Amino acid sequence: MVTYTPPLRDMRFVYHELLDGDALAEIAQYADYTPDVIDAVLEEAGKITSEVLFPLNLSGDTEGCTLKNGVVYTPKGFKEAYDQFTQGGWTGLAAAPEFGGQGAPAALHFLVQEMICSTNMAFGMYPGLTEGAYNAINLHGSDKQKALYLPKFVEGTWSGTMCLTEPQCGTDLGLIRTKAGPQPDDSYKITGTKIFISAGEHDLTENIVHLVLARLPDAPEGIKGISLFVVPKFLPNDDATVGPRNGVTCGSIEHKMGIKASSTCVMNFDDATGWLVGLPHKGMSAMFTMMNTARLGVGIQGLGLGEAAYQGGLDYAKERLQGRALKGAESPDKPADSIIVHPDVRKNLLTMKSLTEGIRALSLWTAINLDKAEKSEGAAERQRADDLVQVLTPIVKSFGTDKGFLAANLGVQIYGGHGYIHEHGMEQYVRDARITMLYEGTNGIQALDLIGRKMGAHYGRYLRAFFHPLQEFIEENADNEEMQAFILGLAKAFGRLQQATGILAQRGLRDPNEAGAAATDYLNLFGHVAVAFMWAKAAKLAFNKKDADPTGFYSGKLKTARFYYERVLPETSSLFAMIMAGGDSIMGMEEELFGAAVAA
Amino acid sequence: MVTYTPPLRDMRFVYHELLDGDALAEIAQYADYTPDVIDAVLEEAGKITSEVLFPLNLSGDTEGCTLKNGVVYTPKGFKEAYDQFTQGGWTGLAAAPEFGGQGAPAALHFLVQEMICSTNMAFGMYPGLTEGAYNAINLHGSDKQKALYLPKFVEGTWSGTMCLTEPQCGTDLGLIRTKAGPQPDDSYKITGTKIFISAGEHDLTENIVHLVLARLPDAPEGIKGISLFVVPKFLPNDDATVGPRNGVTCGSIEHKMGIKASSTCVMNFDDATGWLVGLPHKGMSAMFTMMNTARLGVGIQGLGLGEAAYQGGLDYAKERLQGRALKGAESPDKPADSIIVHPDVRKNLLTMKSLTEGIRALSLWTAINLDKAEKSEGAAERQRADDLVQVLTPIVKSFGTDKGFLAANLGVQIYGGHGYIHEHGMEQYVRDARITMLYEGTNGIQALDLIGRKMGAHYGRYLRAFFHPLQEFIEENADNEEMQAFILGLAKAFGRLQQATGILAQRGLRDPNEAGAAATDYLNLFGHVAVAFMWAKAAKLAFNKKDADPTGFYSGKLKTARFYYERVLPETSSLFAMIMAGGDSIMGMEEELFGAAVAA
Repeated sequence: MVTYTPPLRDMRFVYHELLDGDALAEIAQYADYTPDVIDAVLEEAGKITSEVLFPLNLSGDTEGCTLKNGVVYTPKGFKEAYDQFTQGGWTGLAAAPEFGGQGAPAALHFLVQEMICSTNMAFGMYPGLTEGAYNAINLHGSDKQKALYLPKFVEGTWSGTMCLTEPQCGTDLGLIRTKAGPQPDDSYKITGTKIFISAGEHDLTENIVHLVLARLPDAPEGIKGISLFVVPKFLPNDDATVGPRNGVTCGSIEHKMGIKASSTCVMNFDDATGWLVGLPHKGMSAMFTMMNTARLGVGIQGLGLGEAAYQGGLDYAKERLQGRALKGAESPDKPADSIIVHPDVRKNLLTMKSLTEGIRALSLWTAINLDKAEKSEGAAERQRADDLVQVLTPIVKSFGTDKGFLAANLGVQIYGGHGYIHEHGMEQYVRDARITMLYEGTNGIQALDLIGRKMGAHYGRYLRAFFHPLQEFIEENADNEEMQAFILGLAKAFGRLQQATGILAQRGLRDPNEAGAAATDYLNLFGHVAVAFMWAKAAKLAFNKKDADPTGFYSGKLKTARFYYERVLPETSSLFAMIMAGGDSIMGMEEELFGAAVAA
Repeated sequence: MVTYTPPLRDMRFVYHELLDGDALAEIAQYADYTPDVIDAVLEEAGKITSEVLFPLNLSGDTEGCTLKNGVVYTPKGFKEAYDQFTQGGWTGLAAAPEFGGQGAPAALHFLVQEMICSTNMAFGMYPGLTEGAYNAINLHGSDKQKALYLPKFVEGTWSGTMCLTEPQCGTDLGLIRTKAGPQPDDSYKITGTKIFISAGEHDLTENIVHLVLARLPDAPEGIKGISLFVVPKFLPNDDATVGPRNGVTCGSIEHKMGIKASSTCVMNFDDATGWLVGLPHKGMSAMFTMMNTARLGVGIQGLGLGEAAYQGGLDYAKERLQGRALKGAESPDKPADSIIVHPDVRKNLLTMKSLTEGIRALSLWTAINLDKAEKSEGAAERQRADDLVQVLTPIVKSFGTDKGFLAANLGVQIYGGHGYIHEHGMEQYVRDARITMLYEGTNGIQALDLIGRKMGAHYGRYLRAFFHPLQEFIEENADNEEMQAFILGLAKAFGRLQQATGILAQRGLRDPNEAGAAATDYLNLFGHVAVAFMWAKAAKLAFNKKDADPTGFYSGKLKTARFYYERVLPETSSLFAMIMAGGDSIMGMEEELFGAAVAA
């Protein structure tokens, strides 16, 4: 059976030492979040996640959700765990104090999220979706809507959903057909079918509040004719108690590869009463303002599963006795050596460790800038921070989930055949991680976002928010003897990224398919460079601190950094070559020839 | 729902055109296997797999196997399908005519196996394990054992298993504890517990014949003290009917990530009667002689699932309407374009197609040489063929399954969120494919086999069996104008492989951990070069034939070859750099530092 220990040492390292998390306390709204408060919250989060959520992870996967007579039942123990979770205030961690929340920085929230995803990603979907609904109403709702719904979300007594896609849509929300008919009062009648609605129906809360994209009768065609509505399962009374049942029902729940304890519902809206959120026909822009946060949240899911898989793999590698070290027995008194003596097992572990810790740093850097973008005093600082968040969001989402899935698979590989057995808990990580590459925009869509929207925006301003600090770091450390290997490796990989960027900007202007054909490789190249930047910074710190450190933490950081530079970062060389090869071999294949070899 | 069409056109291409499959008919035992017979068998195999096995694939996964009172029930329809399968003679396709088999070449058998794995890999485990047992007894059993068991295996009325591992063993079979006590007659009493026994118990056949590794009382410790026994579920009467039940029972079946319709059993042997197969203490060498074939079979599983996933992804990419082509609508009359217009979707499809077809060619080349190694007249020719099989076996197993798993995942990616839903059938391919990287020796073990056993054997003779024809091809085509891009790309990648081989041979002598730390990357580099060789040969044929071909088949081949060279093969550049970086960063990390970041 897998185990989990909250990686608090590394979380403190990235927050307090590697990045300027502590500077967030200088922002008025975050003044309470001093280093000791951060550590205390992390410790408490570590407890509830490892002690309450983690023990329900495997059983929740085994049991799954069940639908009976329109009611969805979550697995055994989930309701009790959810109550403990809400009573601990975790549903309001990042919410505004005026609605009962604790107003914590996103940076802290992200680290807590990681622990939730490591220990029970399926459970995390329920409060996670509520946070999305909170954000939607907080950013776009009326004061009355805010006053009604937000305190309920913070308490956790009502939960939320995001009802976007429909069977014919997928990513293309311009194809939405759900209708909203205006009523004599200020309400609307919503009719249509939504699919893939996470937490659409469940037994954890007294009410479920759906945020629904639909078309008004006079709506323009396509993406510009979509409005956002709030549609509660039970209509709220004036005193914020729940009133009569609304015309929204769960038609079925999906049988999925993973996150089986998270209900994924087909939701039928049948003349359901709803209210407009924000302006008519502006539903998509309301969605877009939240999408960045949601995508970062999915990246964190990948990170959390990567960490869990690493811990699972490491435990097993230390305990499992099999074979002998290639240079002779290391534990001659035992029947066999533990498999951590084998180079290939170590390589898998270090791949997981270097990617997971690197992505943790990259995600936290993004989160800190998310906080600064919203709360910093100076407009220039806010913009610079937001620029960085814009460019890093698709990276954290795609690179974070690609590598989380990789780590989950390497974890299974370390277990050998036992990794394939349900009871050990490792194969669940693979199945759970697989969804993160698909939802909130597939990873291919993220790559298009990076290359199509983010790369050229404001004449490359978003990119510069990332390129400049990296370039500065290289220059600052160019003469630092002990940093030479890292600076050379970073400069080389960064050079590839800059060159690819320049060439793709030119080619993409001439032919958008050229940008599209390179997009995934480009994002992957970008992700490797971004994580290399984090590791170079970590290495510099580690050089300074390792001699005074009896725990070996910094020495381990330095060795992991070196592994990343020698055995992971070289992937940029292939990615660069593939990008340079261009899109002709991709676009030149006639559609009918794809199937020519299959034909009889 | 996914569909499947047997890729007969490509199978005929690799067998008759690309490779010298037809030359096998010059071998006396294969004289019947003329081109038209090959095609007829492929066609029939295509029918039974697509019409009988494929419709049971998803339902078999949903239902799984059940154990009640010691009896394992396979999913609904499996027994009827199995009876059709045996009545069609498929259980005896590659078996010797003297035991009722059809004596088909391994090359044909492999192509049929691919179709079985594409359509119902879990079903294929039952006859697949029987073939393993057939080979064990055929190669090492007494004449009496052969006469008793082999006709039953060929008929399919009795099935077989391979009982190797135990809870404490995994790959390290030296740790086996199962005991065999000699009896006054020529039998033994077998006692012990075996795990992960595929087809260990089921309801498809009247008897199940276990091939069991166990220790005789006087056995030396470790790997050199293991003997092989045949232990039938029901003791055979002299007239080859089934007699009394033997002391072997199924204790439990595993809950697995995939291949759920294949029973994976814990088998308890409790004073079970068995008979020695081959010589005392020589069980491991008996196993080794079969292991190559078994490993190739697992590679074919990866290939089969890759093909199935490709077809699933291609269907969906053509049918699914969503978004618009980047350069403007391609189907303006429809609400959206089909997603195959998008470069990233095409890139995923071409990655799957180029790897699957390339690995099909590589596997068939291996299979043809397997036939030549066993049946060719000249000893030199047999040895050259066997050398090639030796070196290609770990490649087909690991590269084939790594890329099969990749293809299964790309297939899901093309489906987007729908790929995560069980009913569509795509996520099953991922779960089924995952085991192929683990069993018959994890892919890491294959890499050690390549670099540790195969690379240096006979002063590099195995390697030369691959390097020489590749080198000759490059030289022969050096002046071929239209082949320039392929020859240059192949020579460059081959140069990397040769250089890596030379350096690793040196480093590995000095420090075996250096070889171990490079093994997986080296195998991956080797696999890319081997598939590049297949594609270069295919491209040469396609250049010659495409103008006279109205179907576009050769044009498609040429374009797929180009894609492989431009967008897949460059991975060799990274792999080379990672190998060159050496193993210090892997072996230099102290065991306790792996967990330093996790600590509180």
